[in-house]
Amino acid sequence: MTAAPQPVPFLKGHGTENDFVIIPDPEGRLELSAETVAWLCDRRAGIGADGVLRVVRSAADPAAREQAAGAEWFMDYRNADGSIAEMCGNGARVFAHYLRRAGLVKDAEFAVATRAGLRRVRFTGAAAGGGGDAGDGGEIVVDMGRAGLPAGPEPSVTVTVGSLSLPARHVDMGNPHAVAFVDRLEDAGRLLDPPGLAPAEAYPAGANVEFAVDRGPRHLALRVHERGSGETRSCGTGACAVAVAAARRDGLDPAADGRPAEYLVDVPGGRLRVTEAPDGTVTLAGPAVIVAEGTVHLPA
Amino acid sequence: MTAAPQPVPFLKGHGTENDFVIIPDPEGRLELSAETVAWLCDRRAGIGADGVLRVVRSAADPAAREQAAGAEWFMDYRNADGSIAEMCGNGARVFAHYLRRAGLVKDAEFAVATRAGLRRVRFTGAAAGGGGDAGDGGEIVVDMGRAGLPAGPEPSVTVTVGSLSLPARHVDMGNPHAVAFVDRLEDAGRLLDPPGLAPAEAYPAGANVEFAVDRGPRHLALRVHERGSGETRSCGTGACAVAVAAARRDGLDPAADGRPAEYLVDVPGGRLRVTEAPDGTVTLAGPAVIVAEGTVHLPA
Repeated sequence: MTAAPQPVPFLKGHGTENDFVIIPDPEGRLELSAETVAWLCDRRAGIGADGVLRVVRSAADPAAREQAAGAEWFMDYRNADGSIAEMCGNGARVFAHYLRRAGLVKDAEFAVATRAGLRRVRFTGAAAGGGGDAGDGGEIVVDMGRAGLPAGPEPSVTVTVGSLSLPARHVDMGNPHAVAFVDRLEDAGRLLDPPGLAPAEAYPAGANVEFAVDRGPRHLALRVHERGSGETRSCGTGACAVAVAAARRDGLDPAADGRPAEYLVDVPGGRLRVTEAPDGTVTLAGPAVIVAEGTVHLPA
Repeated sequence: MTAAPQPVPFLKGHGTENDFVIIPDPEGRLELSAETVAWLCDRRAGIGADGVLRVVRSAADPAAREQAAGAEWFMDYRNADGSIAEMCGNGARVFAHYLRRAGLVKDAEFAVATRAGLRRVRFTGAAAGGGGDAGDGGEIVVDMGRAGLPAGPEPSVTVTVGSLSLPARHVDMGNPHAVAFVDRLEDAGRLLDPPGLAPAEAYPAGANVEFAVDRGPRHLALRVHERGSGETRSCGTGACAVAVAAARRDGLDPAADGRPAEYLVDVPGGRLRVTEAPDGTVTLAGPAVIVAEGTVHLPA
């Protein structure tokens, strides 16, 4: 005798092909163990995703209550291995899109509670109309906090990939990044292994490494190797790190200039728009799509 | 203006972690283009799977009618890239499991129409009870046709992986295989690239390459590099090829002996049982699981 699988509602969606299993659990009744999350994200044995977004009322989740002043909904984000993460920019767009699509939020601008604190989201263009998918036309804009990086326009670290050593810029977006500008995205090779980082003490716990090229004025493209995940189709904090590094390289500093700096950033899975405001706030804008919904049978 | 996505019922399931999107289309009303199949199998932009199983009544599908004598249901199997394939052993188990689970077939033994002709499936043990999932307890047994291989117990081809050259056995299971017995499965390395095959004229269109070890008497384990897909979690024809190659190596030949030869074959995604009967028929037995079901929104 084995216990019967547990049927649970789910949706699958993505933002620039950073994909998520969404588990609506408004009253916080589900016990989502690390094992269950890893199973949901298993691309062959389960559904498959880069992470899980559990949707729970802030008031119904003990972990959320302290983050929840002013936000009705808490984004309980988990990594594909079941571990807990503070924040995910592409995930926040998908999360916000789900809330509006499900009729749980009516406003075109609202706050979401995350483990990194409150994050504002805003729907623009076609996305602001609500109801339909935000994949076409409009954008969802998410507050990503401030970037931390050394003063000055010069690279400060070195990234090694294959036989290539590249000067790179350190950027902290809540997680550590090393941004290397290259001539061609192919220069990064197959990116099967984590690139080398020097000096070692700059990244005691490793880093996400971005390889970036210019596509035109204020228009970049990147490939990214994510710490613990390998090369991915999109990385929200990585797009922000690349845009801010490019701004400094280009002699732009919104805090000093009093003007925002805005870059288009093409990732393998789509297009993002990153804006750094004079007050230091970085916002990430892009699409979010729900592709499927139904019932998943959690192993007992 | 963009057209609205088309909502279509789907299920996701797997057999030893060879996974499939199932599209029930009993009356053959769906136009599943290669692009739509590739999107469904895209693990980040779509649902994600190794292939699509469209479930259609043989009478309702022009391509199926000629294969359909005696089989009510046609397995319209498509590869992840949208191309058409004749047959898939793990897919046939998942397909048969779906038919019984949905109440479309009541019998514990029946025929399925495929592009390779009729294939018999049989439910044993707990799986024969019907209704529930076949992941625990019982097995689903699928007729895989006959194996073709050179007479005699000696290897006839050479497989190269990294700096290692290995004698291997050629086996034809409708598709070509090269089976190399190794000391440890790790000897095959990372298997990122197709292994070398010699002589070249033995495999003009490439081959699936299996690396196999003994786990005990009549008990094997394998890793497989599938032509066009890379290393996978399971390969039904690969498990059959390895079992038949092991039988000849072990001096067993059911046609001559008048007795079936049976091997357990562990694949990375689970356990399969392969039996070669005195009449030459090879059967593949193992589990099938449905993990989720709902509505997928096909891009317009």
